Amino acid sequence: MTIYYKDAYINETSVTAGPFLIDGPLKEKFDNVYTDFYDKEKTFEDCEVNELVKTINTLLRKGNYNNRDISLLISADLSNQIVISNLAANKLGITYFGIYNACASFCESIILASSLLYNRDDKVICTTSAHNLTSERQFKAPVEYGMPKPEYSTFTASAATACIVSHKKEGVRIESGTIGKVIDLGVKDAFDMGSAMSPAAAYTLNKHLKDTNRDISYYDLILTGDLGLYGKKIFKEFCLKEYGLKINNYNDAACLIYNNKDSRVCAGGSGPSCLPTYVFCEIIPKMKKKKIKRVLLLATGALFSTTSVNQKKSIPCICHAVSLEAI
Amino acid sequence: MTIYYKDAYINETSVTAGPFLIDGPLKEKFDNVYTDFYDKEKTFEDCEVNELVKTINTLLRKGNYNNRDISLLISADLSNQIVISNLAANKLGITYFGIYNACASFCESIILASSLLYNRDDKVICTTSAHNLTSERQFKAPVEYGMPKPEYSTFTASAATACIVSHKKEGVRIESGTIGKVIDLGVKDAFDMGSAMSPAAAYTLNKHLKDTNRDISYYDLILTGDLGLYGKKIFKEFCLKEYGLKINNYNDAACLIYNNKDSRVCAGGSGPSCLPTYVFCEIIPKMKKKKIKRVLLLATGALFSTTSVNQKKSIPCICHAVSLEAI
Repeated sequence: MTIYYKDAYINETSVTAGPFLIDGPLKEKFDNVYTDFYDKEKTFEDCEVNELVKTINTLLRKGNYNNRDISLLISADLSNQIVISNLAANKLGITYFGIYNACASFCESIILASSLLYNRDDKVICTTSAHNLTSERQFKAPVEYGMPKPEYSTFTASAATACIVSHKKEGVRIESGTIGKVIDLGVKDAFDMGSAMSPAAAYTLNKHLKDTNRDISYYDLILTGDLGLYGKKIFKEFCLKEYGLKINNYNDAACLIYNNKDSRVCAGGSGPSCLPTYVFCEIIPKMKKKKIKRVLLLATGALFSTTSVNQKKSIPCICHAVSLEAI
Repeated sequence: MTIYYKDAYINETSVTAGPFLIDGPLKEKFDNVYTDFYDKEKTFEDCEVNELVKTINTLLRKGNYNNRDISLLISADLSNQIVISNLAANKLGITYFGIYNACASFCESIILASSLLYNRDDKVICTTSAHNLTSERQFKAPVEYGMPKPEYSTFTASAATACIVSHKKEGVRIESGTIGKVIDLGVKDAFDMGSAMSPAAAYTLNKHLKDTNRDISYYDLILTGDLGLYGKKIFKEFCLKEYGLKINNYNDAACLIYNNKDSRVCAGGSGPSCLPTYVFCEIIPKMKKKKIKRVLLLATGALFSTTSVNQKKSIPCICHAVSLEAI
């Protein structure tokens, strides 16, 4: 399903970044940073909630809004029952919808926000949140185990991101969105999300190009969210073999946010904030200067839980696409 | 935020009900039933996934559609990372958005579906799923403990529900929707969701009436989702004291789906399927016969997780409203 928007824009953006990100190539570009996983709070979860609230308050300040000016907050994170988003929404007092498509949630939120702009002055905030240690201990193993990881695993990006979507012609234009379907080729290794998610990304890319009748060269850049160093290669190969798509104008946000010489980040970033962190810090500023004009975002998500992995299910994956244009 | 719809309708509906519901007052009205919590599957989760898939396939059969006719599936359930919805979406091969606002998810899905109907023949399926034992063991304590519960606790309704939302003038009309905000008055007892959620329901009811400039008598019925026997009383008192709203045209789905003489169901039903089960089995058939014409649904959700409860957080709650009209 591809939806076209006449006048939806991403206006202001805001990013708060934590450990590892703040040592990476984007280090000068964050609105807020925190240097340890507690940031003066008692729990990782409290830390994550507060970084998300701080990110939204920074966004409001940058846009010169207060929370009563906002029609709706759409938020996603990796915690069970997206409780980080729930607790942040509670502190902010903004009308709220929670969503969840794992790391594909950013594109889901942009598509929903663009579809929910009913009045001329509606403003919708889309947020994502992740914290490496809240998600590590929830999805994998208690942090204290110090469990070694395979080199193809990815390292959840500790960041909160927020943007305002509105009819106001400012920032970058949201031109269209393609909603993906669940693709599951049988990968069962929860560390190997790059392999699991690549076919979903290729499916949605091909669907978007077919629906819009566009050639891959239409875009200056195709950007996946968090396939990682290995998934990126698999994605390119899969696009060629399965759909005959040869993509050169391509990169993956997971490979661009860390200092890749640090072996602790393994194959790169992951999590729902990985893609918007890179997009808000690098892509939108370039689009505003018209250095790049058309970008297709492919946010990929691995839709598993610890229960489904423990019950030996394979990992169903999804990808949603959003097409951005410079104005 | 209140959104008005010109031509959005709930067409077909489908309900699959499990133990306890099938002994209650709606027992003759389900499309499918299952009589034990495994229903020939190896795990409760497999059972829940299969009941959800069965419900959607029944819906497609009733509407004379196949899954390629469907533009989008929007689904929510109580499992961590909504993995029940993810696995069902995987089996169905339909374009998919996952959402989560706990037991308020039904109204969230109806509002989103109505906002996503771009083309004349778009059809969006909205589903909810719950299974008493998958949710009990995830949110409270392992089932085998046989832990006694306070009488004010509610009993998750084991049901999967699905409906088609489209522009086709058939079934009942979705007239408007009001999105709520998070309300938290400090309740910390995860068994006492009725008390926790009542203020959110009262807030959204009052907001809806103010936004639409309607008197409470505009509606033939105000129906909350799962406040339960105690929450229902608190809601009525809270509406009167906080907002001066005297409501007589009111009921709560949680109090209407079980055999209330069975002490095991305590204060009534709960879960995301509680409200749509009652609406699809009782309300929509009556609206089709024009026995009742205007109904306001108030779906309430308790936005906690086991982590937030264990970390002594109070329970933030939300309520979204959907106004239905007979056609």
